[in-house]
Amino acid sequence: MSDAPDVGELTPPNRTLMGPGPSDVHPRVLRAMSTPLVGHLDPSFIDIMNEVQELMRYTFRTDNKWTIPVSGTGSASMEAAIGNLVEPGDTMLVPTNGYFGGRMESMAERAGGEVVHVDAPWGEPLDPADVQDAFDEHQPDVFGFVHAETSTGVKQPGVPELTSIAHDHDALVVADTVTSLGGVELEVDDWGIDVAYSGPQKCLSCPPGASPLTLNDRAMDKVLSREEPPRSWYLDLSLLEGYWGDDRSYHHTAPITNVYAIREALRLVAEEGIEERWARHRRVAGALKAGVEAMGLGLNPEDEYWLPSLNAVLVPDGVDAGAAIDYVLEHYDLEIAGGLGALAGDIFRVGCMGHSARPENVSFLLTALGEALEAQGADVDPEAGFAAMREQLGQ
Amino acid sequence: MSDAPDVGELTPPNRTLMGPGPSDVHPRVLRAMSTPLVGHLDPSFIDIMNEVQELMRYTFRTDNKWTIPVSGTGSASMEAAIGNLVEPGDTMLVPTNGYFGGRMESMAERAGGEVVHVDAPWGEPLDPADVQDAFDEHQPDVFGFVHAETSTGVKQPGVPELTSIAHDHDALVVADTVTSLGGVELEVDDWGIDVAYSGPQKCLSCPPGASPLTLNDRAMDKVLSREEPPRSWYLDLSLLEGYWGDDRSYHHTAPITNVYAIREALRLVAEEGIEERWARHRRVAGALKAGVEAMGLGLNPEDEYWLPSLNAVLVPDGVDAGAAIDYVLEHYDLEIAGGLGALAGDIFRVGCMGHSARPENVSFLLTALGEALEAQGADVDPEAGFAAMREQLGQ
Repeated sequence: MSDAPDVGELTPPNRTLMGPGPSDVHPRVLRAMSTPLVGHLDPSFIDIMNEVQELMRYTFRTDNKWTIPVSGTGSASMEAAIGNLVEPGDTMLVPTNGYFGGRMESMAERAGGEVVHVDAPWGEPLDPADVQDAFDEHQPDVFGFVHAETSTGVKQPGVPELTSIAHDHDALVVADTVTSLGGVELEVDDWGIDVAYSGPQKCLSCPPGASPLTLNDRAMDKVLSREEPPRSWYLDLSLLEGYWGDDRSYHHTAPITNVYAIREALRLVAEEGIEERWARHRRVAGALKAGVEAMGLGLNPEDEYWLPSLNAVLVPDGVDAGAAIDYVLEHYDLEIAGGLGALAGDIFRVGCMGHSARPENVSFLLTALGEALEAQGADVDPEAGFAAMREQLGQ
Repeated sequence: MSDAPDVGELTPPNRTLMGPGPSDVHPRVLRAMSTPLVGHLDPSFIDIMNEVQELMRYTFRTDNKWTIPVSGTGSASMEAAIGNLVEPGDTMLVPTNGYFGGRMESMAERAGGEVVHVDAPWGEPLDPADVQDAFDEHQPDVFGFVHAETSTGVKQPGVPELTSIAHDHDALVVADTVTSLGGVELEVDDWGIDVAYSGPQKCLSCPPGASPLTLNDRAMDKVLSREEPPRSWYLDLSLLEGYWGDDRSYHHTAPITNVYAIREALRLVAEEGIEERWARHRRVAGALKAGVEAMGLGLNPEDEYWLPSLNAVLVPDGVDAGAAIDYVLEHYDLEIAGGLGALAGDIFRVGCMGHSARPENVSFLLTALGEALEAQGADVDPEAGFAAMREQLGQ
C-alpha cells in the first residue's frame, strides 16, 4: 500500500467566473460556509430549513409547499423532478432546441417513460404551434421545457401559452430554470408551471451542492400516488416528504453546509428584491450585450429571445474559439466557455449571473475578450465596445 | 405574491457533535470551504480532482483507479454503488442486522434487482456460515454488507472470510464503510472488497456533500458492460467516467466547495497517517467505552464487535432516552442520538469520530450524560467514569 500522499495547501487560482456557471460566489455566502455544523436533525436546523424554504418560495415566485433544496447539484434536482413525475408507461414531451432537452430525454427514459419531441433548432425557442401539434399528436403526460437554455443563451418567451396548452391536455409542466432563477423574470405560479428545478451556482451565486426544486400540489399528488416507487431512493420525493414535511424524520443526511450557503444566497436575493435583481441582470447584461455588439461581434439568438444571464456571442470568422478562451483564462484569470453540441466552435458562452453581474465584470470581460480576439487578428473595436457599455450603464 | 422574507443572519447554536454524524468539522476544513470557486472544468480543478482521488485511495487502502467523490451525501454514494452494480434480473444478498441493510434492499429493488437476505439480529454481526448458506441457496450476483453499522454500533469482523465466500461464488462485494472510513481499520484491497462507499461527515469530519466511492476493475467492468444504463442519470458511473477519467468531459457540475472540503479532510488523514488515525479512534473511544462502563452503563454489542466510531450505550432501566438526549442538547449543546428500528429507546448512539474523537470530548460527554441520567434518578457513578477514562488515556 502506498505511503501518505504529500498534497499541499489548497491554493486555486483567483478566477473571475463568467462562463455558464458557477458564477462568482458572494463573499457572504463563502463566509456562511465556514460556519460550524449542527446536526441535520437538530431543532435549530429545522428552523434553518423553514427559512430556506420560505426564501426559495419568494425567489421562485410561488406559494408551493413543496419547495426544497435537493441534496446534490442542478442535475440532481432535475432528476428528482423528472424521475418522480414520470412513471413507467408515461410519455414525456421534451424539446430538441438545446443540450438540456437531451438530458431530460435521458432521465425520462431511465425513469421508464416514453419520450416524444417538439422540435426547434439549437439557438431558437419553441414555437407554441409546434407544442400544440406535439400535444395533439402524442398526448404526453409530462411536458418539459427549458426556460433559459444554458447551451444556447436562449430565453423561452410566452411560457403561460405553453403551460396552457399542456394543461388543456391534462399534462404536467416541468420547467428547467437552472439559468433563470434569481436572475431572469420567472413566475412559477402566475405562469402555471407545475414543477421547476434549478441550480444554485448560476444567478444565485452559491456553490453547487443543494439545488432548488418546487412542485405544486397537483404535481405532488401524482408523485405521492405512484404505483411503484421512483427508481432512485436518494431522490424519492415521497421519502423526502418525511424530512422536509411535517414529520422531520430522517431520510438522508442533508448537506448542511450547502443549506447554510443557499440560505445566505437567497437572503441576498430577498435583500435586493427579486424584481430589482432581474432589473440589475437586464441592465448589466444589457451593457455587456451592447459592448460586444459595438465591438463588432454578434449575439446568436434574436434580441427577442436574448437571455441576460447567458450571452451566446458569435465567434468571428477565422477565430479559434478554444484558443481565445484559453487566452482570457491564462492572461486574465477569466473563465468563459465555448459552445456545446450544434454550436460547438460557433459561440462563446459568457455568463452574467448573480454576483458576477456587475459593471466592473463587464468592463473586464470586454478588455480581456477584445485582446484575445485581436491577438488572433480579428477585426474588433474594443473602444467602441467600452463606449457602448458606458452609455448603457449611464456612466 | 408575498413580500421578501425577513430572515436574519445565520447564527446556529455552537454544538459539540457526538451523535451518529455529522461529527465536528475540523477548522481547517471549514476554512477550506470559504475558498473562492474555480470552474468545475478549470485546468486547476483537474489537479484538485487528481489530488482528491490520490488521497482517497490512501484512505481506503486501495489502488483502485475508480476512486471518486460522488456529488451528494453518503446515501448518494451508496445508491451509486448499488444502482450501477445491480442490473435488472440480478440478485443481491443483503443483511438484516441493521438499518442500512434495509436501505440496501430498497436501492437494489429500485435498480431492478431481486433481493435475498442473510439474517442476523440487530446488534450482531453476520456469521460467515450464514453467508455461506445464503450463497449456496441463492447464488446472488452481488453481496452487500455493512462494515460499521451506524444504527447498532457493530463492527463486522472477518471481512476477508466474507469476501472469499462471495468470490468463490463469482459475486461482487459491496461494503458500506460510512462509519469506518478514516476511523476504523479498513483494507479495501487486502480484504477483497470490490466496491466500498462512505460518507464524509463521520470519521473524516467533513461536511456532507461529496461522498467517497471506490470500485475495482472487476466491478467497473460489470458497470461498463451493462445491457441497459443505470436508472439514475445523475449517478451513472459510465457517464461519470468521462469526467473523472481521462477525458475530463462535462457530465454534471461538481460540488466544487465540497471537493475542496474533502480534499482538506483527506489531507488531515494523510498528515496524521491512516494507521495512527485508527489508533487514535481506538484509544479515545476506548476511554469513552471504559468511562461509560465504569459509570455503570453497558454497551450493546459484545466487545468483539465494538465499533469505536459509534458507541451503542444501553439506556438504563427507567430512563427515558429521548429526555436524556434533549437534556444534553439543552444544557450542554451536545448532540448524541437514540436508537433506530429494533433498538429505538434501548440505546444511546454516541459517536467518536474524526475531529470529535478527542479526550476533551470524552470528558465532556461523561459529564453531560452522567448529569442527564442522574437528573432522571438513574444509579450512575460519573466519578468512576472519569477515573476509568483517565486511566485508559494514561492521564
